[in-house]
Parts: sequence; C-alpha cells; structure tokens
Amino acid sequence: MPKSWSGSRVDLHLALDASGGRRCGLESALRDAIRQGRLTAGTLLPSTRGLAGELGLSRGTVTAAYDQLVEEGFLTTRPGSGTTVADVPPQTVPSASAAPAPAGPRHDLRPGLPDVGAFPARAWIAATRRVVTGSRAAALGAGDPQGRIELRTAVSDYLGRTRGVVTTPGRIVITSGYYQGLSLLSGVLARHGATSVAVEDPGHDVFRSVVQRAGLATPALPVDARGARVDALAPGVDAVLLTPAHQYPTGVPLHPARRQAVGAWARSTGGLVIEDDYDGEYRYDRQPVGALQGIAPERTVYCGTASKTLGPALRLAWLALPPQLVEPVVAAKQQADLYTESLTQLILADLITTHAYDRHVRAARLRYRRRRELLLARVGRVAGLTAHGVPAGLHTLVSLPAGWPPEDEILAVCARRGVALRGLTELHIDPDGRPAGLLIGFAAPAEHAYRPALDALFATLPPPAPGVGR
Amino acid sequence: MPKSWSGSRVDLHLALDASGGRRCGLESALRDAIRQGRLTAGTLLPSTRGLAGELGLSRGTVTAAYDQLVEEGFLTTRPGSGTTVADVPPQTVPSASAAPAPAGPRHDLRPGLPDVGAFPARAWIAATRRVVTGSRAAALGAGDPQGRIELRTAVSDYLGRTRGVVTTPGRIVITSGYYQGLSLLSGVLARHGATSVAVEDPGHDVFRSVVQRAGLATPALPVDARGARVDALAPGVDAVLLTPAHQYPTGVPLHPARRQAVGAWARSTGGLVIEDDYDGEYRYDRQPVGALQGIAPERTVYCGTASKTLGPALRLAWLALPPQLVEPVVAAKQQADLYTESLTQLILADLITTHAYDRHVRAARLRYRRRRELLLARVGRVAGLTAHGVPAGLHTLVSLPAGWPPEDEILAVCARRGVALRGLTELHIDPDGRPAGLLIGFAAPAEHAYRPALDALFATLPPPAPGVGR
Repeated sequence: MPKSWSGSRVDLHLALDASGGRRCGLESALRDAIRQGRLTAGTLLPSTRGLAGELGLSRGTVTAAYDQLVEEGFLTTRPGSGTTVADVPPQTVPSASAAPAPAGPRHDLRPGLPDVGAFPARAWIAATRRVVTGSRAAALGAGDPQGRIELRTAVSDYLGRTRGVVTTPGRIVITSGYYQGLSLLSGVLARHGATSVAVEDPGHDVFRSVVQRAGLATPALPVDARGARVDALAPGVDAVLLTPAHQYPTGVPLHPARRQAVGAWARSTGGLVIEDDYDGEYRYDRQPVGALQGIAPERTVYCGTASKTLGPALRLAWLALPPQLVEPVVAAKQQADLYTESLTQLILADLITTHAYDRHVRAARLRYRRRRELLLARVGRVAGLTAHGVPAGLHTLVSLPAGWPPEDEILAVCARRGVALRGLTELHIDPDGRPAGLLIGFAAPAEHAYRPALDALFATLPPPAPGVGR
Repeated sequence: MPKSWSGSRVDLHLALDASGGRRCGLESALRDAIRQGRLTAGTLLPSTRGLAGELGLSRGTVTAAYDQLVEEGFLTTRPGSGTTVADVPPQTVPSASAAPAPAGPRHDLRPGLPDVGAFPARAWIAATRRVVTGSRAAALGAGDPQGRIELRTAVSDYLGRTRGVVTTPGRIVITSGYYQGLSLLSGVLARHGATSVAVEDPGHDVFRSVVQRAGLATPALPVDARGARVDALAPGVDAVLLTPAHQYPTGVPLHPARRQAVGAWARSTGGLVIEDDYDGEYRYDRQPVGALQGIAPERTVYCGTASKTLGPALRLAWLALPPQLVEPVVAAKQQADLYTESLTQLILADLITTHAYDRHVRAARLRYRRRRELLLARVGRVAGLTAHGVPAGLHTLVSLPAGWPPEDEILAVCARRGVALRGLTELHIDPDGRPAGLLIGFAAPAEHAYRPALDALFATLPPPAPGVGR
C-alpha cells in the first residue's frame, strides 16, 4: 500500500464520523481525496477486504462504495488487476460561503414600489390552501402558455369592471411581469415588420431599452402638461408606448383631446397603442379615468400588472390584446419559457374572484392617499419646491428650485443618509438642457417607516449651500 | 332630442339596475351605447338637468358621469355648445365566453410527469405561511436575477448531498424551468462564439429545438447500451448535452468508461458538458449514481428541476455553472424577464431546508418503484414486448415486436381509448430505419388511477391484427 494511502486514512475516518451512513461516509471521503489530489490517477486501492479490516467496516460496505465510485467514474476496475483511481484531475473545491442577500435601502422612497408590508398574507394563505388542496392535477400539471384560464377570466372581468377595458379571457395573455410582456410584444412587432415604437420623453428608461433590444427604433414623443404630445407622432411610426392614466414620470394624465387624437391616429394609420397602465388603480381625487384601451380596443394592447398592488416579486402581469396579436404573442411566450408558473396565477385568480384583491387595493388606496398628502405638505414647506402631476400613483415628481445644487449631488446626499429615490434626469432621452427633478415614491416603506423616511429626506432638503458641508 | 336617444333610454335604465352605483351604471350604459354605435359621433346629449329628470337621478350624478366620459374620451364638451359624442367608432364587443381549460387525458401514461396528486400540500401551506408572514419585504420586494439566495443555498447543499454536485450558492442560477435555463445558456454560448452542441440521438426533441433556436448546430451523438457514444464527439464541437443518469428516452445510464471519456474530452478540448439531470432523484435498484458534474465541475453545467418532484407548473429549475458562465447567464436571465418569481423560490427553499422535500422525494421513489415493477410485470406477459433501461426515472421504453402494426397506429388506438403515451420514433433525429417503441410513463396518474391506466393500455397490447378492427 503506498504511503499516501495511510495518510488519507484519518480523513476517511473523520468523514465516516461526520456523515449519516458508513457507506456514504466512505464514498464521500474517497471522492474528496480524489478531487483534492490526495489520491492520484492510477493509484491502486487496497482490496475491499483489506480496507474493511483497516477501517472496521464490513467488506460489503467497502465493495458497495467501490462499486458506486466506479459507476460515477472516480474509480476504474479491471478483472484481475484490482481497483485504481481514475484520471480525474484535482479540483479546487469552491468555497461554500454565499454572499448575503443585499439589504434594501434604509429609507425606501423609490418610485413604483408598493408597501409589501401590507401584503394580504392571510387571504393569500387561505387562497393557497384552496388551490393546492383543490384539483391538484389542474394546479400542478402542465400549464398554459397563454396563462391559466382561471386567471385570464378573473383579470378580464376585473379590467372591465375597474378599468373599462373591453376584452375577453381569450384575448388576455399572462406574462412573468410587464417587462417580459413588453419584451415578447416588441419581438412580435419586429418580426411582423414594425420598425419603430414612439416612446414618451421623459419616460421609463428600462422599458425603452426593452423595445430597442427587439431592434425597434424609439422616436421621442415630448411630454407637456397634457401628457404625451401624440399630435407629434411622426408618419410611419408603427406603435406608441404610453402611460395615459398617470404619465411616468411627470404624473400628468393624458388629456381627453389627446386620448381621442391617439385613437384617431391608430384607426387612420393602422398604428398600435401600447398602454402601460402601471398604477392605474391609484387615483386619489376622483374615480380613476378608464383605460385608453376602452376607446380603441382593436388597436390597443393594454398592459396591467400585480407588481404595484401585491409586489413585484410575484412576476405577474397581463396583456389585453387585439385578436390578431394573441396567437403570435402566445407563441413567443411559449418559446421563451413555455408558460408562467401556475400556482401564483391560481392564487391571484382566487383573490380576484373572492374580491379580496379589490379590498386590498381599496385599503392601499386610502393609505397611499394619506401618504401623498403628507408628502405634499412637506414639499410645500420648502421654498421653491414644486410637486407635479395629479393625485395618483405611487410617486410624485418634484422639480428643483433655481440655485439648488445639481440633481446628482442631492441624490448623493440622500443616499449617504440612507434615503433612496430617483432623479428625473436619467429619464430624459437627451438630458441636455432638460429640467432636473426628484421622483419621490411614497408607497414602498412600511406604514411605521414612512414618516421617518420623510424626516430623513427633508433633513436634506433644502440641501446645504455649497461649501457648507455636513 | 333625437329619436335614437329615446331608444337608448331603456338600455340605460337596465344598466342602472344591474350595476353597483347609479353613476357607474349611467357611465357604463353611455359607454356601451357609444361603442355599439347606438350613440353616434356628434350626437348632442341631453342637458344634465334634462337627463337627470328623465332617469330619476340627481343632476350631480349625471354631471359626474358626463365628466368621467369626457376624461375618458367618449364625450366632448365645449363651453356654450353642450356635450356631444366623440368620434369613437362602433366596436364589435367581443363575446365573453372563455374556452374551457383543456382536460388532460383520461389515462395519463406520458413520460416525464410526476404524480402531482401526491403534492405535499400540507408542507407547502405551512411553508407559505412562514414565508409570507416572515420578512415580507424580502419575500415580495424586488427579486434577484440569479435567484433568491435562500433557494440557491438550499439547492447547493441539496445537490452536494444527494447528487454529488460540487458547487456553491454563488454558482447556482435559478430559472423559470429547465426549458428557459437551456434557452438562456444556449444564447450565451452562441454569443460567446460556440457554433455546435452535440445532442443525444434519440433524445428530447423539444430541447434540441431550444438549442437550435439559439443558432447552434446540433450534431447527433448515437446512443447504445452504454449511453451516448461520447467517443463519437466530432472535433470542433463546443458542447455536449447529455442525460447521464438515465438517458432520455432509452433509460440507460452513461457507462463509467464514458463518464471518464467525456470528462477527459472536456478537459482536453475546453468543451462544455451540459448535464440534464431531469430525473436523477429516481433510482430504484441502488443508490443513485452521482452527477457527472462531480468529476468535471469546472467544465460542466449541471441542470436540475423541481418539475419531476413537485410538478412542472412550478417552473423552477437550477443551473450549477462553472464560474466563468455565471455572470453572462445571469445577465441573459435579467434581459429575459428580470428574475424568477420569489415566493415559490422561498417556499421551495423552506421545504428543502426543513427536509420536507427529501421526505417527499423518498416517498415518491417508493411509490414509483412499485409502479415500475407492476408495469414490467404486465410488459412481461405480452409475447415479444421488451422493456429497456435500468430501474430508474419516471418512464420505461418498450420496443415493439416484429409483425406488430406501426407505432403511430398503436398510439392512435391508445389515444382512442383515452391512453396518452409517447412514441420513440419522433425522438430520433432521422427516424428512417430506426427502431420504433413506446415510452410509457408510470408516474403521472394518481395512485388510484394507475392500475386502471395500465388496464386500459394493455387492453390494446398486443394490438388487434390488421383488418380485425375493434
């Protein structure tokens, strides 16, 4: 027996102590010894009888362990010539330490995030129970690329009832979030010959990138106090991506005359309207304005999401499509990932049909309304600071008075105090000469954490005069 | 007032009865009348006072409804000239009837599906409760494109413990199913200059297509009684996609000598092994053979899934990657859909760390082992019918005796009796002259439905002689 073998014996013995069974322990010890190069290729192993005696194991245990490692390719055996170590090079076994999950900001005033602390946990658990103890084959068997019919039916009804969307379950496609939905839709449009989708400026940079990645140009549509300048739609544009209920980021709704104009544009040119109704549930001064889709359902793709009501982690969104787009979008979805996870879809369908979802949204609307009023009161106390947009959504745009430090400096000061929010500048397609501003989300913090977050923010506003330091 | 207006009054009244509030009912009725063309563009509406009197509503209600529809673009108002219907063309309101969810086959003997009737519902509900009542911000806030660290940690530990995979949480990427994982990986390989991925023949046609859609060639690797002929790997092939534990569909494991050979190939050529360990948990005659990844972790992508243990509807799979592939695969995942839904990830992590997952797999293994034995006993009673492969997995390949009708006829007879299974022919890259066969899954039916499914299948085997009919 080679000298190195004796050396490995202690390790083997230690492994045997540490593991569940003797055979598993022996296998692990041998695997590790081979991987770490302590047993090198070609080394002749002791006979099963010899090793069994040496380690105080039964011969059957050692034989079984050798057999296992032969199957796995760590050992080689040839009749009459014993068992040798196969040609497996030593490996650096990677360290097992995992990076900890990144902690969120201390004061989360980022736009577009709901208060997940208000997640309707009890209703969710009850719905989970109904779903997984109900017809399990339906819940857990193969899914539907278009989305579960239960959720499509619930969403179709919900959208008609709350957002004036004209659709049917057959025209709804469920996607793993709006990001995926827009990505699939953009790919379909590009494959069908579209070359450009007009986007709002300022607008959501991430979604502009999604459209561009499909190979589509994104001509800019300026935004003014009446929303996107749809009168400025260039000839030949194939589609327009709009946030009509509450323009992101300025917070203005699309003016009634412009709603009619974009509908007329779609009908006369055959263009497509993509309506991102990201936070259409939240209007605080009046009944929400119905979806733009309602006046041109055959030319509009309506996009909704559970991200602003229950939380982005659920990755559930829906497209209400004109009929001719249903089949190609479903095919694109299938090619991407077959279908969206079913359990969460069935649970959400249950919450909608039992009206637990409506109750949750209504309660959130009351809370966010109070939070917005609180925010605007604080804004009003800072000389020169102005809030824009209608009382709606999960954020407010605040423009900066003349003479204040640049936006990025203010954001940096906020970040140092643990306050996360967003600047307007990066949402302009070409920020040169365009106004700066702060996007202040008022929904993300837990209820108890909201006032402290505002305190932390307004401790930095107005910012210290240059040179004064902190 | 135009005559048509009186005509619409009844509808308005009906809508008012049917809906929750009077104002909403009036709005709906007006919207529908405009959409359906009963109120045409330019029609002057009655004064708010006039309509209020006619319908028995307060004037404020009518004013609010008119205002709402002006906002939504259905009506137009100009000072001094009253309220008129805007230019919204009539629409065919789509029918609200939804296609019912397609029912599964009566006797489901398709390969690759677990018995979802045995889903551990109670453990799942308990884990759901822990997850959604725990730190909700963590569960429901923005997710991680690489996958939740909780699940990556649990999976890394589980794979090391049960499949001999050498990895760390930092090398795991969670995807929405293996299909998406392979699609993302194929895209990354293609963008990094790879041009071909060898695939097993016969092999899984769907996954071959996924690889091809990334623009990669898929040269065939014949399969014999020792598994894939890795000795036949052509020079210049960039990667090889293998099912080493239980070749799909033949059911043979990759021979130890071939495991070593493919490891040596990867090391000497820099090639990549993609190990699809789709049902590696299920071995019935011995301890499962460890993953091939264990002998070449720096050159192997290990792919595992919850689809064969808990159910495909969960869309949860994992890749254990060599370090240099982690960042590009995570970037591809982020571009596809930002990240996989978090709740299901956290629930599965909880099930693994509390060992409820192991218990579930162990119980399933015992049940499937009995089912496989039952199937093989029935196969043995049919003259000439032969089962292939080792006792493992969720299906068995059965080859057809000479003189039997062609495979597609047998499958058609089975389908007519409500028995769903799969044929071997379509899994050959070029089926011409290659053997036919039946892939019989033994896991999908609920426990009480398995024997009836076998009865239904074997009522068709041997098939009636040609011309005898049924």
